[in-house]
Amino acid sequence: MYVEKTCEEIAALVHGRLCGSCPQGLSGVASLKEAMPSDVAFLGNDKYREQVLPSRAGVVLVPENYDVPPPAGRAWITCADPSQAFSTLVTLFTPPPVSYAPGIHPSAVVAADAVVAASAHVGPCAVIGAKAQIGEHCVIGAGCVIGQETCIGEQTFLYANVVIRERCSIGKRVILHPGVVIGADGFGYNSTQQGHEKVPQVGIVQIDDDVEIGANSCIDRARFGRTWIQQGTKIDNLVQIGHNVQVGAGCLIVAQVGISGSSTLGRGVILAGQAGMAGHLTLGDGAIVMAQAGVSKDLAPGAVVFGTPAMDRREFAKQNMYIGRLDKTAASIKELTRELGELKAKLAALEEKK
Amino acid sequence: MYVEKTCEEIAALVHGRLCGSCPQGLSGVASLKEAMPSDVAFLGNDKYREQVLPSRAGVVLVPENYDVPPPAGRAWITCADPSQAFSTLVTLFTPPPVSYAPGIHPSAVVAADAVVAASAHVGPCAVIGAKAQIGEHCVIGAGCVIGQETCIGEQTFLYANVVIRERCSIGKRVILHPGVVIGADGFGYNSTQQGHEKVPQVGIVQIDDDVEIGANSCIDRARFGRTWIQQGTKIDNLVQIGHNVQVGAGCLIVAQVGISGSSTLGRGVILAGQAGMAGHLTLGDGAIVMAQAGVSKDLAPGAVVFGTPAMDRREFAKQNMYIGRLDKTAASIKELTRELGELKAKLAALEEKK
Amino acid sequence: MYVEKTCEEIAALVHGRLCGSCPQGLSGVASLKEAMPSDVAFLGNDKYREQVLPSRAGVVLVPENYDVPPPAGRAWITCADPSQAFSTLVTLFTPPPVSYAPGIHPSAVVAADAVVAASAHVGPCAVIGAKAQIGEHCVIGAGCVIGQETCIGEQTFLYANVVIRERCSIGKRVILHPGVVIGADGFGYNSTQQGHEKVPQVGIVQIDDDVEIGANSCIDRARFGRTWIQQGTKIDNLVQIGHNVQVGAGCLIVAQVGISGSSTLGRGVILAGQAGMAGHLTLGDGAIVMAQAGVSKDLAPGAVVFGTPAMDRREFAKQNMYIGRLDKTAASIKELTRELGELKAKLAALEEKK
Repeated sequence: MYVEKTCEEIAALVHGRLCGSCPQGLSGVASLKEAMPSDVAFLGNDKYREQVLPSRAGVVLVPENYDVPPPAGRAWITCADPSQAFSTLVTLFTPPPVSYAPGIHPSAVVAADAVVAASAHVGPCAVIGAKAQIGEHCVIGAGCVIGQETCIGEQTFLYANVVIRERCSIGKRVILHPGVVIGADGFGYNSTQQGHEKVPQVGIVQIDDDVEIGANSCIDRARFGRTWIQQGTKIDNLVQIGHNVQVGAGCLIVAQVGISGSSTLGRGVILAGQAGMAGHLTLGDGAIVMAQAGVSKDLAPGAVVFGTPAMDRREFAKQNMYIGRLDKTAASIKELTRELGELKAKLAALEEKK
Repeated sequence: MYVEKTCEEIAALVHGRLCGSCPQGLSGVASLKEAMPSDVAFLGNDKYREQVLPSRAGVVLVPENYDVPPPAGRAWITCADPSQAFSTLVTLFTPPPVSYAPGIHPSAVVAADAVVAASAHVGPCAVIGAKAQIGEHCVIGAGCVIGQETCIGEQTFLYANVVIRERCSIGKRVILHPGVVIGADGFGYNSTQQGHEKVPQVGIVQIDDDVEIGANSCIDRARFGRTWIQQGTKIDNLVQIGHNVQVGAGCLIVAQVGISGSSTLGRGVILAGQAGMAGHLTLGDGAIVMAQAGVSKDLAPGAVVFGTPAMDRREFAKQNMYIGRLDKTAASIKELTRELGELKAKLAALEEKK
Repeated sequence: MYVEKTCEEIAALVHGRLCGSCPQGLSGVASLKEAMPSDVAFLGNDKYREQVLPSRAGVVLVPENYDVPPPAGRAWITCADPSQAFSTLVTLFTPPPVSYAPGIHPSAVVAADAVVAASAHVGPCAVIGAKAQIGEHCVIGAGCVIGQETCIGEQTFLYANVVIRERCSIGKRVILHPGVVIGADGFGYNSTQQGHEKVPQVGIVQIDDDVEIGANSCIDRARFGRTWIQQGTKIDNLVQIGHNVQVGAGCLIVAQVGISGSSTLGRGVILAGQAGMAGHLTLGDGAIVMAQAGVSKDLAPGAVVFGTPAMDRREFAKQNMYIGRLDKTAASIKELTRELGELKAKLAALEEKK
């Protein structure tokens, strides 16, 4: 598993231009700050420019606009996209992914009428309900619980302790990280004098192909019909998506976001960390909700909003600027009042003179 | 399982008044947007009024104030409460709930001195600790872990992978969704120069009857005594409730809310999504905390608050209005300064003339 | 298990000074509000001073500056640190902790080449991957899933249903509460016209000694290298820590906090509940982020910040004060405008007279 490469070999691998030379063999990857002389590091964000020279990394992948020459015994490799080039090397130097052999672990509990593809892996203590279907090359991690009549498409990967309740539909190449809960009841009650009466939540969750959902995130089942996450959307950890929400294709939903029931997101919408949305809203294609913002109205395609309640990002910045000047505003008013007083006095004196 | 009804039958079922006619048999329910001609939809929120006519739903349940006549081949059914009427139909048309047969799955691990009612269902790979008690007609889902000496009342339903630690008390007809954690240690330390020394958390959690708790929510055990969720309170997903908190009866706590330790909520308090509360606070009966608000002071009964730090909702709205006008405020001050300068000059000219 | 002590015995146990007398034997601990005459309560927070006299507690532990004398039949015990003294009593009066016998439960699934110390407890349905190592006196709770090649130091305690993925490193005396997920993939994509391409996340998570992590919290594995939680840091429930984050020693991270990727926290940093941080930031030693704040810039050591975007706490307070006065600001401007108008008129009259 141990791999060692020369700096020339690395440059060739990433189609980069070598600058300087590194006598040492390279056997790992690391961040600029943590790298040793046998590591390759990279400058992916201009913010870290000052870390390149002090770094101990034998080789640093740099962007084309980085013009500081390397010191003796170290090398730069200039690349069009250092971050992407680095990913190639990460794959080269890191241990192979854990493999999951086809077959059902003897401790797993699979209903007699469930259909599990022969190439699928079902881990220890996983539980698969009646009439569920598990596609080819799926991995169902240890401790997962798949509900009755739920279907999972081929090559989908469930890490440990994922729960999917009954009758949900999961696409192909979907990745669900540990602790994800799909298809729990939506939060719906009829509140009367006698208390909060539960509204049946009998719809499903549909997750389309190539979706990824982070650890301990929750996607509630629909009251009726479906909660729907469309193709290629990526969801981070600890996200809450309410019943009957529809998330368009290619969205990015960062950690701890909450989307209330019946909202609809267009294609390519981005919600940054800890943002929240009220229910029954529509967000246009490509809308961006900044971190911790709270959206209370529909958003036009391409809108970029910040704050609670969320507003246009430039409007937010303008308001913030004015707020930051309120001490000066107060001082101006005090000064105006003083000057006005002076003027009054002078005027009174003039009038008296008449 | 397939059910088909005429629109007259539907009207009778929901005690509504039929308007127009739908030739097609009805076999499902759906939202206005997704409905097909064989579906019943409903207008539950005035916001969707414009979706009624374009919908393809064969029948729409409408409120009494909806006065647009149905087009040919479609029907409205006027109801006092279309949302509730729809729930009745949802139950009619949807597949029966998954059934859980009484008995302990052979893969479950039940302590010899635990007491499990004969009518209870204990799912695959569930673990029940020493001296725990599981009431009649309970469902303990697959992969649940019930701690030593914990008692669970009758008809309580634990979905998969719920964890309840030792010595907790769960009432009757409680619903715990997948991944819920009850009775983990509260977050308490004595911080000294040597570090943060753990404060023992030896109390319990008591959950009263008819409480429902959403997926992956956490209710910490008390430092001593109990953390207490009272009768009929409903808690959404990913909610955090700290040690020694007391939540009154009939509260609604929406997703991702956080309640810090030792706070007390009265009856019928509502915390909207992502709201937070500092510790040791008291919220009066019926208080409402709006989404993302951060409560830092006690609230009177019936208070409605917004913002961080949270303030009266009207005060928040007023402040927001003034903030929105700060550009005009700045312009006014500029204009006042200019006019004052003019006046000064004129006055100086007058004085000179003397 | 039942323990009864006199008030003199209690005073001796906590090295406190007895004031008054309690005839009743003492057999429990409780909060001031919930205590019965056989309970010891304590005054740990000045806020509860008014609850001491009305409490029914037979004995109250009070701080040295509490000078109200006890009524007949009740006693105070004056202590340097009533909260700490109370912890001693909690331990005395409460049932012994649940014990976990050494050994591997027969329902657990342990890889043939995993190394589990003889003194470790592996609970029912736990799963331990290939080449994993479990140290002496560890407890691996029911339903936990430990990935391939992960190492866990001695005396570390994993409650039920914890997931640790492959190749992570967990120190000694670490406590992981139920549902914790360690080492899930970080949230990283290269977004192109074709969609969001997953960036491999091949690093690990390293958790140092004496760290505690609350229920359902998530610590993502590094893109490369490690996500690193250093010695003695305490993390509450439902916290999200992104890939390549480094958290210094002795930090306190309260519930529902989110820390974005590649950020670095110094020693003793405190993040209060629901606070969030952008990625690639550095927080100096002892910095404090108040509840719900959103940090978007590096923080100097000892900084205390509030608000979104977060700013110095005093600056925030000042801004808030000015915002609270905006109604008066508007009134002042109106009044100035009126007075200026008056002045103009008078001046015009004077000029006319000439």
